[in-house]
Amino acid sequence: MGIHTYFQSLTDLERIIRCPGKFKFQEHSVSAHSWKVIQYAKTLADIEESNGVTVDWKKLYEITSSHDYGEIFIGDIKTPVKHYSLELRAMLQKVEEGMVEHFIEENIPEDLKHIFRRQLREGKDDSVEGRILEVADKMDQIYEAFAELQRGNTEKEFIVMYRNALIKIKQVKLHCVEYFLQNILPDLVSEGSRSPIDIEKITNEALAS
Amino acid sequence: MGIHTYFQSLTDLERIIRCPGKFKFQEHSVSAHSWKVIQYAKTLADIEESNGVTVDWKKLYEITSSHDYGEIFIGDIKTPVKHYSLELRAMLQKVEEGMVEHFIEENIPEDLKHIFRRQLREGKDDSVEGRILEVADKMDQIYEAFAELQRGNTEKEFIVMYRNALIKIKQVKLHCVEYFLQNILPDLVSEGSRSPIDIEKITNEALAS
Amino acid sequence: MGIHTYFQSLTDLERIIRCPGKFKFQEHSVSAHSWKVIQYAKTLADIEESNGVTVDWKKLYEITSSHDYGEIFIGDIKTPVKHYSLELRAMLQKVEEGMVEHFIEENIPEDLKHIFRRQLREGKDDSVEGRILEVADKMDQIYEAFAELQRGNTEKEFIVMYRNALIKIKQVKLHCVEYFLQNILPDLVSEGSRSPIDIEKITNEALAS
Amino acid sequence: MGIHTYFQSLTDLERIIRCPGKFKFQEHSVSAHSWKVIQYAKTLADIEESNGVTVDWKKLYEITSSHDYGEIFIGDIKTPVKHYSLELRAMLQKVEEGMVEHFIEENIPEDLKHIFRRQLREGKDDSVEGRILEVADKMDQIYEAFAELQRGNTEKEFIVMYRNALIKIKQVKLHCVEYFLQNILPDLVSEGSRSPIDIEKITNEALAS
Amino acid sequence: MGIHTYFQSLTDLERIIRCPGKFKFQEHSVSAHSWKVIQYAKTLADIEESNGVTVDWKKLYEITSSHDYGEIFIGDIKTPVKHYSLELRAMLQKVEEGMVEHFIEENIPEDLKHIFRRQLREGKDDSVEGRILEVADKMDQIYEAFAELQRGNTEKEFIVMYRNALIKIKQVKLHCVEYFLQNILPDLVSEGSRSPIDIEKITNEALAS
Amino acid sequence: MGIHTYFQSLTDLERIIRCPGKFKFQEHSVSAHSWKVIQYAKTLADIEESNGVTVDWKKLYEITSSHDYGEIFIGDIKTPVKHYSLELRAMLQKVEEGMVEHFIEENIPEDLKHIFRRQLREGKDDSVEGRILEVADKMDQIYEAFAELQRGNTEKEFIVMYRNALIKIKQVKLHCVEYFLQNILPDLVSEGSRSPIDIEKITNEALAS
Repeated sequence: MGIHTYFQSLTDLERIIRCPGKFKFQEHSVSAHSWKVIQYAKTLADIEESNGVTVDWKKLYEITSSHDYGEIFIGDIKTPVKHYSLELRAMLQKVEEGMVEHFIEENIPEDLKHIFRRQLREGKDDSVEGRILEVADKMDQIYEAFAELQRGNTEKEFIVMYRNALIKIKQVKLHCVEYFLQNILPDLVSEGSRSPIDIEKITNEALAS
Repeated sequence: MGIHTYFQSLTDLERIIRCPGKFKFQEHSVSAHSWKVIQYAKTLADIEESNGVTVDWKKLYEITSSHDYGEIFIGDIKTPVKHYSLELRAMLQKVEEGMVEHFIEENIPEDLKHIFRRQLREGKDDSVEGRILEVADKMDQIYEAFAELQRGNTEKEFIVMYRNALIKIKQVKLHCVEYFLQNILPDLVSEGSRSPIDIEKITNEALAS
Repeated sequence: MGIHTYFQSLTDLERIIRCPGKFKFQEHSVSAHSWKVIQYAKTLADIEESNGVTVDWKKLYEITSSHDYGEIFIGDIKTPVKHYSLELRAMLQKVEEGMVEHFIEENIPEDLKHIFRRQLREGKDDSVEGRILEVADKMDQIYEAFAELQRGNTEKEFIVMYRNALIKIKQVKLHCVEYFLQNILPDLVSEGSRSPIDIEKITNEALAS
Repeated sequence: MGIHTYFQSLTDLERIIRCPGKFKFQEHSVSAHSWKVIQYAKTLADIEESNGVTVDWKKLYEITSSHDYGEIFIGDIKTPVKHYSLELRAMLQKVEEGMVEHFIEENIPEDLKHIFRRQLREGKDDSVEGRILEVADKMDQIYEAFAELQRGNTEKEFIVMYRNALIKIKQVKLHCVEYFLQNILPDLVSEGSRSPIDIEKITNEALAS
Repeated sequence: MGIHTYFQSLTDLERIIRCPGKFKFQEHSVSAHSWKVIQYAKTLADIEESNGVTVDWKKLYEITSSHDYGEIFIGDIKTPVKHYSLELRAMLQKVEEGMVEHFIEENIPEDLKHIFRRQLREGKDDSVEGRILEVADKMDQIYEAFAELQRGNTEKEFIVMYRNALIKIKQVKLHCVEYFLQNILPDLVSEGSRSPIDIEKITNEALAS
Repeated sequence: MGIHTYFQSLTDLERIIRCPGKFKFQEHSVSAHSWKVIQYAKTLADIEESNGVTVDWKKLYEITSSHDYGEIFIGDIKTPVKHYSLELRAMLQKVEEGMVEHFIEENIPEDLKHIFRRQLREGKDDSVEGRILEVADKMDQIYEAFAELQRGNTEKEFIVMYRNALIKIKQVKLHCVEYFLQNILPDLVSEGSRSPIDIEKITNEALAS
């Protein structure tokens, strides 16, 4: 019944824990993840700009800050489920969009409805901003998985998460991806060298794949 | 790679929290929930037996103890999502069954495969045991929601959960449902009388619906 | 030693809990708070824009997303300490700025240094964006305090937090402040009417002060 | 005051943490432990059946699901205390039985009293079901201790727990014990080979003792 | 093997939670409890001194700071168990003393053994210091139970704990007990007047009993 | 409003977590820390006494038990901030003293005011008791940091904390410091020999510095 309902719902994402079920040395809420994605995206966009690319900061702000809001409605569905079939994935996305639309219809005042519809859409399109969001989202999977691997967490899920995120990132065409692979990833790998898990090998395999 | 993988995976359900996102005074893991469902089912079956009904205890044991194991694979999908459309529900169930089958194929030795296939199927069929499981599962929703309402939790989700579980229970034809409605529910409502939320009214509306 | 150090440090804000010491029904990390401030600021800026005000979205993005990053260096200093004397406040701000500068000098590559210096400065200036940040930051104090008061938390600190935040907000000259006071705050007060604490009275006194 | 009191008390076991005091990477509640014991016992009984042994599933259900319910009354008494002297152990068991009997007398309706008396008795007798329970209970100690040792927990208590549980299991005459020692334990030991603690050596010493 | 083992064991008491099983708005570790007992005892002893009583501060220091150290060995045994029979209570105390003695024998150097034996003995004797410890220990039960009752916790255990602690305190002959009953308890009761539980009535009944 | 306010405030220190922001395998509250400091100080004082030094046990009791109480008012300010400049440190100490004095003025009865003023002052002076407190406080930093290093925590903060505490301790002239360095520290270093971090080297460098 108004923007109040929307603002109040934000705190729900503090109570949804990422990667449920698996043993973790450190847990992350969806809201903490979202904040870190915003931070990465900001620096990635800065790097694009310094390479002469024009960034639509308003759009970037909108899509990065809201990109996981839909989890309030559908909950935390495991990645393998989402990727089980294109058909299921499309259907789940349709359900999420339907619930978001229903929420906007019920709660957002007329004059703001079009703004919320734009903001709460899926943001990972082919625009510069959509690609930056994609990279930033995957970067947080790398940092979350790395923190576990570095401490010796032997759950395979974190190796898979680290590898898949890296493979996804390297396929995105952006100046900041180059920067990440050349200037940031080596520091991370170097820091992980004392881990019982061979992070360098996993990294090299992912980059070579 | 053997039963060891299965036994070890059980602890994952200690780390999946029910009803994620909503404010709760007390959190419940899926494994704690499962244990309580087993306890309720035992007493419900005792009541059936004392009314002359034959209970297949082996089947009851199997279906109650394993009834939420599949959440290890698909994660915690919110009830509204599951119930969004019959088509989606069927597809999600198919995905879960596929993942369970894949797990059995990969990990369970040949001579035990048929046993695990039987145990990890969906248990809520029309048999006495299937109906007892349905009632026991809903009873735990009542107890979980009641504990929140009693302490003044104003999240609507818990009122909805309490009401829907009660409506579902009263539709099941079992002696133990009669017993629950006449001998257990009144004590619960009476205990909730000091809550700022009118539990008696919610209960009566659900029973009258 | 590079952007990696900066990105990795972000997770530290997930482990700094706001309002330490006081009993709380729900705890909030600095990173979860920061994410909510970004969300409020986005809608507040949308409201400004629909009133014809020009918003610098890049600047808004930068100052809202980084506004509490400095807490990594100085920790969580209680509000009464910060406000004890203008002299102490100035000195603490100088220390924080010194530590941020030291961090940039040590870790951020030359070509990005000027960007980080701009982003990690204090953002609450007199610009539209600075004022939006101020309002958004105080709005989260209102929502955090409200959630406690609504559940009957009798710690005086939350009444003080709610009142002071409201007094601060109403003094800021922005269209979105009008909107908040007329269209959002009444819904919040109305929802709090069942609390044992008289939220309406506290609200009215703050607005009249 | 009725079965309601019993059902409601079950949630207390979600708040009793096993092995209190010692540093643990993962905590386990008594209810989560109980659920896992039920799962192990089910598969152990399946193995007995496939070897031609008759299993009383109703009895197995009753004794495994209730086997730690008495901890609600006496709390978590450390193993060394329980084993300090036969005299003390007998006295503690008498106290627990007295409290359970008092609870049944006060809360359980006349027609169900005999059922609860049977279910809440000590289940680890010499029957097949009692021995399966004994093995399943010790298996969870092995899995709990293993998860700590594997992650490098150096508390001696977990080595002792692992060793003693293994020694106890190998003394029980059951087909499923053979199966566990030959088909499950080797996988577990193999998985633990990367731990800084020599799990294989501890295992072999326990098996040879 | 030396004082190091003793110093290191102290942290175990940070992981033993008081009153396990029962729902609590706030949990307390044994070490946090012990620290508060020391604080109360200090002020109680100050009040004795200002009434002309001589306090042996060294003894008071020793017995208050160590009074729950034995829980490291025997764990958290519920009060009703301890009080089940004089015989059981004596036996449990003997076990605890035996374990403490064993620990001293194994770990404490010869020249310090007599000091540790004196410090780790049961401190609640009839001396002024022993009685102050008894009152301070019960005062923390009052504060812990009060904090639950004030927030509407309806677990009977906390009413019982509050009442029994008050009855015990009022029977102890000390100037500080007078002071507590006349100058401290009324403030506490007054603060609890908004609770849904009638703390004043429970207090008056305990004082009149 | 009386001693009640003081006693009730003690529980706030159970909710202030030491070393906020950094990843820790085990968290410590200020109250748990305080209790351990009291335990160390007791044994350190025993060692002084056995070397013929006179200890004022009342003073030692007062200053060790209250030494972090001021954190209730000023919160958890990071060590680097406190040590940024002598001027800032002096100012922060003045603020803390002002807040403590204000609290005493408002809440403590006239006849106890002088006692609380003495107890809540800064205790680390040049007396035997003040020096014992200094050593005991640093010893807990050693134990807290050691527990992290031993488990492979690679946060530099814990190496710094361990080293600085050791350097501080060795500079204090007390018999118990000799005892600690000769009889306790070697056991600790020996126990840490399996850690991936070279605790022995860090220790030797600190002792040689």
